[in-house]
Amino acid sequence: MPLSWNRYGKSRVRLVKIKRAAAQHELVDLTIDVQLEGAFEKVYIDGDNSACHATDTMKNTVYALARQDPIDHVEQFALRLADHYIVKPAVTRVRVAATEHPWTRLRSHAFVQAGGENWTALVTRDAQGAEIVSGLTNLVVLKTTDSAFCGFPRDRYTTLPDAGERILATSITASWTYRSSEVDFSARERIRAALLDTFAAHVSRSVQHTLYAMGEAALSACADIAAITLALPNRHHLLVDLKPFGLDNPSEIFVATEQPFGLIEATVTRTKD
Amino acid sequence: MPLSWNRYGKSRVRLVKIKRAAAQHELVDLTIDVQLEGAFEKVYIDGDNSACHATDTMKNTVYALARQDPIDHVEQFALRLADHYIVKPAVTRVRVAATEHPWTRLRSHAFVQAGGENWTALVTRDAQGAEIVSGLTNLVVLKTTDSAFCGFPRDRYTTLPDAGERILATSITASWTYRSSEVDFSARERIRAALLDTFAAHVSRSVQHTLYAMGEAALSACADIAAITLALPNRHHLLVDLKPFGLDNPSEIFVATEQPFGLIEATVTRTKD
Amino acid sequence: MPLSWNRYGKSRVRLVKIKRAAAQHELVDLTIDVQLEGAFEKVYIDGDNSACHATDTMKNTVYALARQDPIDHVEQFALRLADHYIVKPAVTRVRVAATEHPWTRLRSHAFVQAGGENWTALVTRDAQGAEIVSGLTNLVVLKTTDSAFCGFPRDRYTTLPDAGERILATSITASWTYRSSEVDFSARERIRAALLDTFAAHVSRSVQHTLYAMGEAALSACADIAAITLALPNRHHLLVDLKPFGLDNPSEIFVATEQPFGLIEATVTRTKD
Amino acid sequence: MPLSWNRYGKSRVRLVKIKRAAAQHELVDLTIDVQLEGAFEKVYIDGDNSACHATDTMKNTVYALARQDPIDHVEQFALRLADHYIVKPAVTRVRVAATEHPWTRLRSHAFVQAGGENWTALVTRDAQGAEIVSGLTNLVVLKTTDSAFCGFPRDRYTTLPDAGERILATSITASWTYRSSEVDFSARERIRAALLDTFAAHVSRSVQHTLYAMGEAALSACADIAAITLALPNRHHLLVDLKPFGLDNPSEIFVATEQPFGLIEATVTRTKD
Repeated sequence: MPLSWNRYGKSRVRLVKIKRAAAQHELVDLTIDVQLEGAFEKVYIDGDNSACHATDTMKNTVYALARQDPIDHVEQFALRLADHYIVKPAVTRVRVAATEHPWTRLRSHAFVQAGGENWTALVTRDAQGAEIVSGLTNLVVLKTTDSAFCGFPRDRYTTLPDAGERILATSITASWTYRSSEVDFSARERIRAALLDTFAAHVSRSVQHTLYAMGEAALSACADIAAITLALPNRHHLLVDLKPFGLDNPSEIFVATEQPFGLIEATVTRTKD
Repeated sequence: MPLSWNRYGKSRVRLVKIKRAAAQHELVDLTIDVQLEGAFEKVYIDGDNSACHATDTMKNTVYALARQDPIDHVEQFALRLADHYIVKPAVTRVRVAATEHPWTRLRSHAFVQAGGENWTALVTRDAQGAEIVSGLTNLVVLKTTDSAFCGFPRDRYTTLPDAGERILATSITASWTYRSSEVDFSARERIRAALLDTFAAHVSRSVQHTLYAMGEAALSACADIAAITLALPNRHHLLVDLKPFGLDNPSEIFVATEQPFGLIEATVTRTKD
Repeated sequence: MPLSWNRYGKSRVRLVKIKRAAAQHELVDLTIDVQLEGAFEKVYIDGDNSACHATDTMKNTVYALARQDPIDHVEQFALRLADHYIVKPAVTRVRVAATEHPWTRLRSHAFVQAGGENWTALVTRDAQGAEIVSGLTNLVVLKTTDSAFCGFPRDRYTTLPDAGERILATSITASWTYRSSEVDFSARERIRAALLDTFAAHVSRSVQHTLYAMGEAALSACADIAAITLALPNRHHLLVDLKPFGLDNPSEIFVATEQPFGLIEATVTRTKD
Repeated sequence: MPLSWNRYGKSRVRLVKIKRAAAQHELVDLTIDVQLEGAFEKVYIDGDNSACHATDTMKNTVYALARQDPIDHVEQFALRLADHYIVKPAVTRVRVAATEHPWTRLRSHAFVQAGGENWTALVTRDAQGAEIVSGLTNLVVLKTTDSAFCGFPRDRYTTLPDAGERILATSITASWTYRSSEVDFSARERIRAALLDTFAAHVSRSVQHTLYAMGEAALSACADIAAITLALPNRHHLLVDLKPFGLDNPSEIFVATEQPFGLIEATVTRTKD
């Protein structure tokens, strides 16, 4: 029976590229699908793969071309990928769908992503009175430098090398307990600013280290809160190994991953006066 | 066998409240969970509902109190709900969890919500050349006035009354085709601004009517695009009937719904020169 | 500027239809999108709605036709809707997309839906030893009869009438604590069966009432567990009011809703021996 | 300011373990979170990582222990992990949360996962008549053998080795066009069975190869359909490299990944009679 249409490729290739200029860093965050149409009947009908470009190679090609060419606009990079594949044997049509996830600059090398941030309030009331815990969730931030993770213990299952420089990305969930229900609830803005400023400015030795600094800054920013709990998933960005393609990768081309992720949680409490 | 712990209530009550001052409108958008703990053993063990406050009543209470009290801060409204329920028979503890979905003002009565907006590019390449379609998705907007839907045909299954005034809310997906691959792709910013400005300013007789105006504005804003396709889901906000509680509702208290939704799609094309 | 393509309609109309035969009940669970194409230029360009069939009417039409016609196959019902709309003025093309959510029969009027059920285990270990809590999530069930909710307290915000007969649907989350870590963990199957059997057989006066019976049955089924916690969201199915269309609705046509939902949680503990 | 509570670890470690007995294969599919509590103040406050077991090591530990110990019950494996970590310096409490994703056997080495399968129908109606396309989505299947991918072209960006044996996992979306609207729509069951049987039995040289065989089988199973389109995402299961831990991995321990994924789509059409 004839094959009347076919298309195949790799979907959801996650690419983060950082351009490290002296004054400030630029960040491009893309999800890319590459798809080919062409004379691939023998692949389907006969199980003959001699014309079947591996989708794994498409993924590699995304990272290798991202290292070699500037990405000023997502359209330009999608065109570059399409030009690469249209000259391959059997290919008659290339479809590249790219999605850019925009970030807003916080400072020279820190960014925030508008992505469904919500503000929370939890009131627990019994006969004695009410406890009020306010917070925010899904405040997504990333910094391109001033983050390290070194000197941790090593056992027989440890393979992670010390990292003097890495991307630090997280989605902040914070909740703080008010000392009474007679406070100015617009404190949320000050606490939010303290969290963002500290994330951006801190010279981080671990997510835990930055979490503590953020908690301390929030308590300092608002005298009305007694404690703050932070949950910081570590959204790992893995440096791509480009050596097989004869390319170096000076902290420039990363895979953004969703799972597994580290999860760091703690409560910082105000010292009793 | 004993019941060692119990809690029940209503989750995900969606509330949108609009305060219509002369100069500009204020918008509060909340999702609320109300939960009760207390001496409810007879409900569980004996099927005796005489102490079981209906969760449906909790939902009604959210809307009725929202009409009667100002909502300056989400914490304040959560406290108000907790105070209402703590005095009910059998209740020993009330838990109110409220989430505020923040909006940013576009103009006096139009708003945009940062919620995962993405920018898209689709390149289709064959031996002859490339077609480039760029776009954006998930640009969420809402206007509190200047939107009507009247004069539509009525058949035996029509119950919707004419609406001279309603909330208009949507999540914009737009995609536009460039006339060539040699254009300035930063046009995205101009097109985005034209879409937002037109959404905010248009005196709308239907989603279709506003879609067309948005498409026309985008084509006017950028000579490099040949056509634009818009998909506008109509995120219905239903006016709550507060009459059973002896209250009016002058276009102030709404339920935000997710499904079903209207879906309006069309392509506006540039007239050949 | 010309409109080169347009389409509009209502998406995600949720329909549950129950056929109540004496021996057993049949259940059809659909999500339907209705979309029209045609000569609607005046709607978009001039804001003239005289040809714009309201999407709200499409929703009503789904429910009214579902009452009047049998639904033996989803294709048949989609055809029926398409036939209804193709004869309307201005319409040149109707597109009906329907999704059926299949259910498996548990007994004559109870059903289970395969939908991502997971099995959980939580081990908490300190220097003294380990606590083991096992469970399951997302076990979706529905019964078409033997569920009531009557006799609850009424205040000024109560509008819900007593319901002698209603659909009861939930997604079971259960977790049970083992008495030691030296037990047979295949107990999960017996506990799962006890939960399903009791849900199906119980004559329910409230979700709380059924939750307790399920918890008691699980404890009886497995001597190795000390306590069980159940969380049962009440997935409301609302009877559609068909009177505006001159039709009755003898507990046959329902809207399945996702939010708000009731949420009932409790722990049943084994009496100390 | 004091740290009043802290907890950290790795979340969403995806593990698939296959036990290859002669008669049939066993499949265990888990998602695991490992979390530690303890005396970690210096990590947070001083940025001293000397007691901070890396979350990356936790991930490695999951895979290494999974190779060394049988997993008869998810509880047993969670206990094993907790025992491993409770003896580490500074750790006072270990929390292991594991979720098992159950699979149902299709044949000796093929499985199906109940996970939200839906049945679809799309009717397109114009003045001439109706076209009916039926289908199914989200039918998740996996086979542990009889799947290879070899002999594909290699360019400078190709690193994938030939694989004579790999896991093949996909979520089937199928849609077929009926030759008329006067057919027996219960054909869905026969088509579904043909797709599952062929997936399980086919000796696969590529996803494309199996797709074609499935399409051909569906057309043979039902004379009423003219064509079938299949979309098969390739849900990659990556063999874990256990050599750093002095362990081999004879196609037994895999990471299940969600992105990127291959996507293979094609239409098989009945030869005109």
